[in-house]
Amino acid sequence: MNVEEAKKKVAERAVDIVLERGFSLVGVGTGSTVEKFIEELSRRRVDRSRLLFTSSSLDTALKLAENGFRVLDPSTVGYLEVYVDGADEVDGEGRMLKGGGGAMTLEKILSYSSRFNIFIVDYSKVVERLGGRSPLPVEVLPQALNIVLSKIRSMGLEASPRALRKGKYGPVVSDVGGVIVDVEIPADRSVEDIARRIESIPGVVSTGFFKGYIDLLLIGYPDRVVEKKFNRVKGLHLAE
Amino acid sequence: MNVEEAKKKVAERAVDIVLERGFSLVGVGTGSTVEKFIEELSRRRVDRSRLLFTSSSLDTALKLAENGFRVLDPSTVGYLEVYVDGADEVDGEGRMLKGGGGAMTLEKILSYSSRFNIFIVDYSKVVERLGGRSPLPVEVLPQALNIVLSKIRSMGLEASPRALRKGKYGPVVSDVGGVIVDVEIPADRSVEDIARRIESIPGVVSTGFFKGYIDLLLIGYPDRVVEKKFNRVKGLHLAE
Repeated sequence: MNVEEAKKKVAERAVDIVLERGFSLVGVGTGSTVEKFIEELSRRRVDRSRLLFTSSSLDTALKLAENGFRVLDPSTVGYLEVYVDGADEVDGEGRMLKGGGGAMTLEKILSYSSRFNIFIVDYSKVVERLGGRSPLPVEVLPQALNIVLSKIRSMGLEASPRALRKGKYGPVVSDVGGVIVDVEIPADRSVEDIARRIESIPGVVSTGFFKGYIDLLLIGYPDRVVEKKFNRVKGLHLAE
Repeated sequence: MNVEEAKKKVAERAVDIVLERGFSLVGVGTGSTVEKFIEELSRRRVDRSRLLFTSSSLDTALKLAENGFRVLDPSTVGYLEVYVDGADEVDGEGRMLKGGGGAMTLEKILSYSSRFNIFIVDYSKVVERLGGRSPLPVEVLPQALNIVLSKIRSMGLEASPRALRKGKYGPVVSDVGGVIVDVEIPADRSVEDIARRIESIPGVVSTGFFKGYIDLLLIGYPDRVVEKKFNRVKGLHLAE
């Protein structure tokens, strides 16, 4: 099956929903499926002065601006009407692994603040067991890096300095100023349990483990889109 | 009673302990009592090539360096032998409020990584009820500011944009890049409960509520120092 076609299909559906429901304050995440969402949105006839956006990354903000959309500074936004984002993996309970692009901290903040969360994935992202394919990304304050690596190792996990995500000239620094450590999840361990323990270490800003954030999951196939509704988990909603 | 004398007294005792026990990798916090600790340490005859430091703030790092001490970059340090810091308030159970200087995130990271934590306060910092005098400082990623303020207000707490700590030219930015929101604790509410709930909001880096971090508490009076031992709480220790 063609993954690119599936991404395009699911992006189109998300654009339909955002426009049909008349949302005017839209948060947009990061990644290749979200990119297709922005492309599709740009092709539609929409009143660019009526729609306001905010985004989880500089990359997305620039793409929106290039297409003539207005992008609010997230620090000035108190809530979102809708948030649209992708995921690296999603399981049957709506738990996700995110952060392949390193933007998961702001993604978590925006999806928390949003009244309605639409996650869009192609069929290849749906997994039986979370963490089998992707590592768990952990965003860490640079000053805490060695301390956090030590603690993760003491949990019996692989976290050598090589686990630090690097670009050509050194560690990748996220949009919120942290560095990213990619933690491999052994097949016999629970990603949820590991994420909760890592999140309690001082200096950890967030992890790419998301549970309870989905309102509507759209799964794209080359010829159709499957919709799944979930209930947001209590506490993971600004209004509560 | 003279608070300055009490601070000097407790700082002297902490220096005695650090030198007597032969610690060679020492973390140093931030604040006026810690300043006295550095002054006292500088007066002693110590081999400056044998002692290594790391610190929770640029302010402390510069003071140590000015006095000829070597200050390691905290991101390169995996653990500390001892950590010395002050507090804004401490109660009978060893719970503390910190962050009057805005450095509590790195203070929490360093005290977590340290095998032995000495907290030094003058007698005026010992309180019956935590939060009666000082607000709870909350460090927030700038991008999440309005979202976090909204959520804190929804908890029935005062968190107007005025709660954002400001300097002469705008918001105070901490050593780790966050901004600080000072949350007043109503007399009938539990600071611990409020801190735990706030810490679970995405975009919150840390709060100034510390529980279970003290090994040894030194309380200074103008004429004496009282020592109190506590047991570190499970989980709040790198080695566990």
